Amino acid sequence: VHRSTVRVARDVLDANATIARANRADFDRAGVRVVNLMSAPGAGKTMLLERVLAEGLREVRPGVLEGDVRGSYDAERLAALHLPVAQLNTDPGFGGECHLDANMVRSALSALPLEEIDLLVIENVGNLVCPAEFRVGEDARVMVSSVAEGDDKPLKYPLMFRACELVVINKIDLLEHVDFDLDKYLYHLDRVHPGVEHMVVSARTGEGVDALGDWLEACAQRALVLDR
Amino acid sequence: VHRSTVRVARDVLDANATIARANRADFDRAGVRVVNLMSAPGAGKTMLLERVLAEGLREVRPGVLEGDVRGSYDAERLAALHLPVAQLNTDPGFGGECHLDANMVRSALSALPLEEIDLLVIENVGNLVCPAEFRVGEDARVMVSSVAEGDDKPLKYPLMFRACELVVINKIDLLEHVDFDLDKYLYHLDRVHPGVEHMVVSARTGEGVDALGDWLEACAQRALVLDR
Repeated sequence: VHRSTVRVARDVLDANATIARANRADFDRAGVRVVNLMSAPGAGKTMLLERVLAEGLREVRPGVLEGDVRGSYDAERLAALHLPVAQLNTDPGFGGECHLDANMVRSALSALPLEEIDLLVIENVGNLVCPAEFRVGEDARVMVSSVAEGDDKPLKYPLMFRACELVVINKIDLLEHVDFDLDKYLYHLDRVHPGVEHMVVSARTGEGVDALGDWLEACAQRALVLDR
Repeated sequence: VHRSTVRVARDVLDANATIARANRADFDRAGVRVVNLMSAPGAGKTMLLERVLAEGLREVRPGVLEGDVRGSYDAERLAALHLPVAQLNTDPGFGGECHLDANMVRSALSALPLEEIDLLVIENVGNLVCPAEFRVGEDARVMVSSVAEGDDKPLKYPLMFRACELVVINKIDLLEHVDFDLDKYLYHLDRVHPGVEHMVVSARTGEGVDALGDWLEACAQRALVLDR
């Protein structure tokens, strides 16, 4: 039983990889760089995006694809910034999946004016397990990790922390109110993903948000060397 | 393609329900009440369990089954309390699943001395989506929700908030430091699961933890009427 389960899972991932490559080819043709933004539920992805995009990116036209099991709350928040936003729900038609996959993203592409976008941020479903297993055609994966979640998370969800080019440590304004040892966290992070870039931010106070903006600009302007 | 995906998913859930019923029959024969403890990553399930179990349950012998993708960090923390603890990893042999299912729990039963346990707490993998879909043979499902995650979570993950008998709102000590409106949260919660019991606690300060202990005692002593 286990062997056949693993076989099916591998077939699914192979099929996903094929569609992800097709998505990336479409993005490349349209000149769009794509970031897959991942985190646990409530780590602050949307508020962080609101902060970064409200301040604006230099010479970069952003767009957002919002992934949620259900609802369009986050898409509505971001649409207030007057940029192209599309909502992708995994609930109707996709069985309430806990992650985005390449096929779901492909189905949403027609809802976005790719020719008006330089940088597309795909906000994944809040989950520290499955999103790491499904490429969607992105150039880079950014993981947001909140200090409220505890400093043991890199050890407990290693695949997620390994499957990203940037780790954004959010809610740093809560540091003195939670049991979170930043040195211990960074030590754990370095064990599961040696040398990965990280930054410390607070979407609430704005601390460090400009550094994330700079990173996204560099990504869109192809100034970052990414391991695609 | 979608129709066959849904068909496969339904078959998986049917098979899971059958094994979950077998688990529950075994638990009933052994006189063990079982709670499935669910939350997002870092909501504080383990620290809450540590607090409750360290204070002790009246006339109730607890045991814990720890579910994690990888590692045994939480099991080691709880084993320090000198109670039966078993670790269940979804990574080796189960494909790194983002949730526990009935078959995984069944495979772990032999590692626990059921005859020495009145209340078994199964700590699920941190995830607000899939754990809600897989019964494991439990009598009750308890969901832990941290105020750091935001007051919109019941709307964004409705199945999880609907699939539980008790919602524990944790990290209430952070309330003044985060943008979390408790009234708004409770309004959202009531919309997705009208009348569900809830309690407000802080695993860090101990506030409200005795109420959770009382609830678990009542559960173990069959004083709660549960919708099994």
